[in-house]
Amino acid sequence: MKKYVYAFEEGNKDMKEILGGKGANLAEMRSLGINVPPGFTISTEACALYYEVGKKINSEVKKQTDIKLAQLEKKMGKKLGDANDPLLVSVRSGAFASMPGMMDTILNLGLNDKSVVGLANKTNNPRFAWDSYRRLIQMFGNVVMEMGHGDFEHILDSVKNTKGAKYDTDLTADDLKEIVTKYKAKIKEVKGVEFPQDPIKQMYSSVNAVFNSWNNYRAIRYREINNIKGLIGTAVNIQAMVFGNLGDDSGTGVCFTRNPSTGEAKFYGEYLMNAQGEDVVAGIRTPLSVATLAKQDPKIYKELVDTCNKVEKHYKDMQDMEFTIEKGVLYILQARNGKRTAAASVKIAVDLVKEKVISLETAILRIDPNQLNQLLHKQLDPIAVTNAKVIAQGLPASPGAAVGEVVFTASEAFAKAKSGLDVILVRTETSPEDIDGMHSAKGILTARGGMTSHAAVVARGMGTSCVAGCADILIDEKAKTLTIKNSGIVINEGEFISLDGSTGKVYEGKLNTQDASLLGNFGTLMTWSDKFRKIGVRTNADTPHDAQVARKFGAEGIGLCRTEHMFFEGARIKAVREMILAGDLEARKKALAKLYPYQKSDFAGLFEAMDGLPVTVRLLDAPLHEFLPQQKKDIEDLAVEMKVDVKTLEAKISDLHEFNPMLGHRGCRLAITYPEIYDMQVEAIIDAAIEVKKNKKSKTVKPEIMIPIVATTKEFSILKDRTINMVERKMKEAKIKIDYKIGTMIEVPRAALIADKIVEAGAEFFSFGTNDLTQMGAGLSRDDAGKFLKEYVAQDIFAYDPFEVLDQEGIGELIRIAVKKGRGVKKDLKIGICGEHGGEPKTVEFCHREGLNYVSCSPFRVPIARLAGAQAVVRELQSKKGKK
Amino acid sequence: MKKYVYAFEEGNKDMKEILGGKGANLAEMRSLGINVPPGFTISTEACALYYEVGKKINSEVKKQTDIKLAQLEKKMGKKLGDANDPLLVSVRSGAFASMPGMMDTILNLGLNDKSVVGLANKTNNPRFAWDSYRRLIQMFGNVVMEMGHGDFEHILDSVKNTKGAKYDTDLTADDLKEIVTKYKAKIKEVKGVEFPQDPIKQMYSSVNAVFNSWNNYRAIRYREINNIKGLIGTAVNIQAMVFGNLGDDSGTGVCFTRNPSTGEAKFYGEYLMNAQGEDVVAGIRTPLSVATLAKQDPKIYKELVDTCNKVEKHYKDMQDMEFTIEKGVLYILQARNGKRTAAASVKIAVDLVKEKVISLETAILRIDPNQLNQLLHKQLDPIAVTNAKVIAQGLPASPGAAVGEVVFTASEAFAKAKSGLDVILVRTETSPEDIDGMHSAKGILTARGGMTSHAAVVARGMGTSCVAGCADILIDEKAKTLTIKNSGIVINEGEFISLDGSTGKVYEGKLNTQDASLLGNFGTLMTWSDKFRKIGVRTNADTPHDAQVARKFGAEGIGLCRTEHMFFEGARIKAVREMILAGDLEARKKALAKLYPYQKSDFAGLFEAMDGLPVTVRLLDAPLHEFLPQQKKDIEDLAVEMKVDVKTLEAKISDLHEFNPMLGHRGCRLAITYPEIYDMQVEAIIDAAIEVKKNKKSKTVKPEIMIPIVATTKEFSILKDRTINMVERKMKEAKIKIDYKIGTMIEVPRAALIADKIVEAGAEFFSFGTNDLTQMGAGLSRDDAGKFLKEYVAQDIFAYDPFEVLDQEGIGELIRIAVKKGRGVKKDLKIGICGEHGGEPKTVEFCHREGLNYVSCSPFRVPIARLAGAQAVVRELQSKKGKK
Repeated sequence: MKKYVYAFEEGNKDMKEILGGKGANLAEMRSLGINVPPGFTISTEACALYYEVGKKINSEVKKQTDIKLAQLEKKMGKKLGDANDPLLVSVRSGAFASMPGMMDTILNLGLNDKSVVGLANKTNNPRFAWDSYRRLIQMFGNVVMEMGHGDFEHILDSVKNTKGAKYDTDLTADDLKEIVTKYKAKIKEVKGVEFPQDPIKQMYSSVNAVFNSWNNYRAIRYREINNIKGLIGTAVNIQAMVFGNLGDDSGTGVCFTRNPSTGEAKFYGEYLMNAQGEDVVAGIRTPLSVATLAKQDPKIYKELVDTCNKVEKHYKDMQDMEFTIEKGVLYILQARNGKRTAAASVKIAVDLVKEKVISLETAILRIDPNQLNQLLHKQLDPIAVTNAKVIAQGLPASPGAAVGEVVFTASEAFAKAKSGLDVILVRTETSPEDIDGMHSAKGILTARGGMTSHAAVVARGMGTSCVAGCADILIDEKAKTLTIKNSGIVINEGEFISLDGSTGKVYEGKLNTQDASLLGNFGTLMTWSDKFRKIGVRTNADTPHDAQVARKFGAEGIGLCRTEHMFFEGARIKAVREMILAGDLEARKKALAKLYPYQKSDFAGLFEAMDGLPVTVRLLDAPLHEFLPQQKKDIEDLAVEMKVDVKTLEAKISDLHEFNPMLGHRGCRLAITYPEIYDMQVEAIIDAAIEVKKNKKSKTVKPEIMIPIVATTKEFSILKDRTINMVERKMKEAKIKIDYKIGTMIEVPRAALIADKIVEAGAEFFSFGTNDLTQMGAGLSRDDAGKFLKEYVAQDIFAYDPFEVLDQEGIGELIRIAVKKGRGVKKDLKIGICGEHGGEPKTVEFCHREGLNYVSCSPFRVPIARLAGAQAVVRELQSKKGKK
Repeated sequence: MKKYVYAFEEGNKDMKEILGGKGANLAEMRSLGINVPPGFTISTEACALYYEVGKKINSEVKKQTDIKLAQLEKKMGKKLGDANDPLLVSVRSGAFASMPGMMDTILNLGLNDKSVVGLANKTNNPRFAWDSYRRLIQMFGNVVMEMGHGDFEHILDSVKNTKGAKYDTDLTADDLKEIVTKYKAKIKEVKGVEFPQDPIKQMYSSVNAVFNSWNNYRAIRYREINNIKGLIGTAVNIQAMVFGNLGDDSGTGVCFTRNPSTGEAKFYGEYLMNAQGEDVVAGIRTPLSVATLAKQDPKIYKELVDTCNKVEKHYKDMQDMEFTIEKGVLYILQARNGKRTAAASVKIAVDLVKEKVISLETAILRIDPNQLNQLLHKQLDPIAVTNAKVIAQGLPASPGAAVGEVVFTASEAFAKAKSGLDVILVRTETSPEDIDGMHSAKGILTARGGMTSHAAVVARGMGTSCVAGCADILIDEKAKTLTIKNSGIVINEGEFISLDGSTGKVYEGKLNTQDASLLGNFGTLMTWSDKFRKIGVRTNADTPHDAQVARKFGAEGIGLCRTEHMFFEGARIKAVREMILAGDLEARKKALAKLYPYQKSDFAGLFEAMDGLPVTVRLLDAPLHEFLPQQKKDIEDLAVEMKVDVKTLEAKISDLHEFNPMLGHRGCRLAITYPEIYDMQVEAIIDAAIEVKKNKKSKTVKPEIMIPIVATTKEFSILKDRTINMVERKMKEAKIKIDYKIGTMIEVPRAALIADKIVEAGAEFFSFGTNDLTQMGAGLSRDDAGKFLKEYVAQDIFAYDPFEVLDQEGIGELIRIAVKKGRGVKKDLKIGICGEHGGEPKTVEFCHREGLNYVSCSPFRVPIARLAGAQAVVRELQSKKGKK
């Protein structure tokens, strides 16, 4: 017969699919000789069988379980539920992946009206025995018998009231005995059956409950949301109970083999003697540092440290472990890779390489690239955070730490910052008028608005820390106070708070911070990554400042400079509007001539900042209506400013209105209608390049001129010819050669489909604009799809939000087609991606796999892309090895 | 040496690429032994060479030309420009395709101060000689020497004034001599050079001018606009002149071998004796019917008829010919396939098959499918039209003829039509309130608005004749008059006019009309087409009426029934709005329950009308906001009607607003959010099918349920599962089996890219929604692209408007991908197209080539698609034969 039940001795860590994560780990530790309470695991295959035969435990499974139980009883020298010296067991679920939606644990199985007395006698601790029984009935009642939580809590509270007990621990053995009686009566009353006295029945009912919980609503939703697929069921672990609360020679605790906050290679943890895990949560006694255990019981301490080190060495990663000391004997109840901060993650990986525990490749794969984001901004000191008071929780809208005096208006922020103070701007919500104050503030805190609110978007753009939508706070701008709703804490203007924009937490007072360090362990990790990485990493940057930040982060060029941002500032927008309102070519050229010097200096700044690295400039992409106001008042003001009458202006705005602007008159389409716009931009680019080269501000200049929204060969060739004419003329005049390229965005699906012809027409590079490609390819408007995309991801219609993680199946196919067709004509065609996906690790891996030359992303995502690019190579190498 | 110059004897009709159309035809006729005045052709290759060497006539070309001229002189027994008996020649351009933008003709070359006297003496007709010379100088001056037209017209008019001459023909030989002197002086004055007296110089200057005209602005634009590509240049024809105005034994005329209006197989034409072509245009003498020539000169008449018949038999098509009789000798100057009406086109093709002149295949290829549109509507009697007065010209907005009394308001139209009168509704422009009047009218005439104006769109939808944007008219609604601007004609209410919506012409009075005939020659053509056609032709129809019309036209099923149209009428829209405003599922279901009976009866009507043919029903596609009003006033009214407050309603409308509705929450996306909408529709479809089958209203019912806007496999499978559940349950309850299918639109590019997976998920058919596929695939919003698409087509960025003719290169590639992937999984997957492209002939051919099962188009396009489908097969057969 097929094997369905495994003693811990029969498993190992590679059997997670059959034994689940917990079962496999317990087995592995036993095989290492670590003192794990004995037990056995009913496999995930038994769970699958349970469903196959109509939610029944198969007789073979039962037979094998009975055998394993008998072996366990033999090993422990006790019988399950024995009236004198009962074996007690826990039943725990344990799937391949950790899954919070499922039933977790039932403890103390085997207790009944008789064995509770035996346990009391045997341990000489009636209170412990009755409390254990009380807990069993409550857990079993809730989970297996599906009683309401209120049913038991109500009884417990009423007894506590009667007895004048403040905490559960104030209850005596007799009190608990009374509660047990009342619990059992309640079960009988509600369910019409008795709490089962038969320990075997208790056990199988619990196994049933675990199996059922695999397909309860929460578990299904959890798998959906977390994209967990292909699993056949959960395993069930049945394990002998051990107790840390049997006296002063007993205890329980949690420890980490290294510091999970800092990564420091130092044993770290907390424990309590004569206690159960729950006692820590109850908050009556303060847990002690494991350092204390070293003094209290050096022998046990040494055993614990040795054990932990052994496990870490075995798993080759920092371990988070649970232990119990029962009457001087150390048991390990759980070991798993410990969660850690980004800083700890990097330090531990680097240290483990230096300790020769893991390889470079493993270290590279260990770090979640997205986590790096935390390290690229100023951070709160992790030690300081441990002792700090979180006063409110909002959305982590823009990462990084900020510490400063609270101010409630943008003008105050601006004024105080000017006088050298650090300020946090606190607003109910921000609006465009606040922009100067936002620029001046170290951090921004808002009471309303989500991850895409004005505050959040602007803050991320500026790289300023921001906690948004913090519903816990109440702002009184007049009184200049910030009140925390729950606690009633009031913070006045000028008082300090600290923000963590990476977690959304708001702290009282002035915490220490530490600067982003691109050196040290982080620098080491980046250097290692670059050794493996093959795909280039460029940045999306529109200003010299952004370009400098990105270079610091390791950007190898600019993959996307959006020129429309440059059209909005100050005097420029006026010239842009003059151009739009111009009645004829001459007037348009006149307005464009005003823009030219701005554009030229913009580009010169970028060329200098990038110092010889390639700079891809996308010519104007936005539709013209984006440069005109929409509100009545603004239109009237503009009419006065532009000296046109309101009706004329309104008519122009209405004329430019589009039903589907995303599919409208923009990008190269505008340039087909008004070629003079691109002429001006190209002239500015090439003149800037010539100037920078002539003045030796950069040893070389590599402009790459990129034409957006190309859908047809001819659009490209018309505009390419004009560009070449301009560039060649300018170079001839200046007697200088510039190493320039002309290429195109691939963002309209049609362009991907005719990529070969676009290359034949002379495109020297492609850059995938995956935002638009997603919008058009999947027919989703980014501005509108929010309404239903969340639901789409929840229902697994899309595995991820396709605007966050590239849809590799659909939009990826367009990319594959374009790469194949483009390279079919020009083998060494340079291909990149410059949508916001360019800094998303899964997308970076995809781009590597498809042979792209580079990804381009926002400056703060550059290190993420570097690591992700390295991981892609390592995974590829491993999979090749695997195939051999 | 390469041959550049061909005597007419050396060419034939298959040499059009080298000799141009005119040259090849003249050569062909000579080889048939037809009396064509001798001459020779300088080839298109000579033109190409002219440009290659920098716009110079190559010496080899000159040498060959000189030789051919000498041979021509020998043949004619005259020398070019001889002082006593000069040979005169014409110089004419002639490219592969007829090209109005180029220089056309210079006549009478060879005349100079001396030879004009010789010609006068020789013909004994000084007036003729001097008039010919006058014309040569004028033509040569304009075309070759680039003089302004005014320069000569001014002189001509002033002499006419002085002499009191009304027409040119009133001028005497001496008057003309005076004019010649003045013309020459003017040339000297303006250009500083003399009119060339050297006949050889005259000739080569003219050849130069023809070559230059190949690349003048108008010719280049003409080639761009008409998508004429790949031609190397124009040929030049040099031909001996013959004259129809040398006395009563001379004459000139135009004839058709069959009647170009009706197609009747009867010789047809007009002529004048002692005249030149120009005299007909001058309008002094009324041309005579060729029937008169039979009496006047039976011998010449017989020769003419015999010649024409010979040419028709040779070219196997009706010929449009020009002839000249010079002193009793018949010359043919031109023969070409004659232009004809749609009715004539069909009749001639059918007759030629019956006469065994052409094959079925040839007949099928002869007819332009788009022309058939004329035949499907009531038409003006072509004979009546010949004598009718066109009073105004507008846009051909909706085809068909309409005759009726003029009315100026919709209510008047409604009232008069109710009393049995035929009315034409005349409006400056129409608006939605006019809808009843528009329904009542036989035809609609508007002064403003284009092809997509309200009047045009509504009229086409109703199949009512409409002339729109007729700028020639002035409407005074109060005075109830319609004034024609140019002529001042005033038409009062109640007076008759006639419209031809296929040409945009407005006629005075009450013309005879003839009904659309689907029998006779048309029926024969359709029967023949169906013999060849392989691709199915279905119709897009939302009502039983449309379905019946389409079946009459030969539709083989419904390929697209749009259900949103059904949501707009009367009481339904209220229920739809209730559903949209419903706060929860129950309320939504309640509102949907009100819609169900309407939907059921809609579908039952369609199933009955189609009597067993398949009926594809597309489930709701439109976004919800389309069902709510946008105007303040309408919103307020609706709030009252729905008993909600205005703010709530406005909030809902604002909530549903989308930035890019084309890419928004519509189609199956709505059904993922609100599955109850499709549930109701599916229930209505299947209940209707069961009812119709049960009541034996149709022997069988074949519903095909189509899910729109599918972009992912899972959207399809979720909705397919719900649909199957509903259908199976309903069939079980009714104990009836319905032959149903579930399929999907392919209109989101992503769907095309994963077509294989959609078939794996159970799609039983695909239908390409090429409107949306074009919008998303090419990134063009149909509502917005009008602003620049015209320019795009003019610049040949798109060969055709991609919303009219399918973009085979780009969007076609998505179709090819989807067909390949879909059929890769299911070999016999049924695939159709139901965008508006489905009735466009080039697209039909594409669909045939790509192996689609059917096209679906509006009822009036069904015959067009049938013919286009047949043509596709015939062309395929021919191209296969060609390859063998």
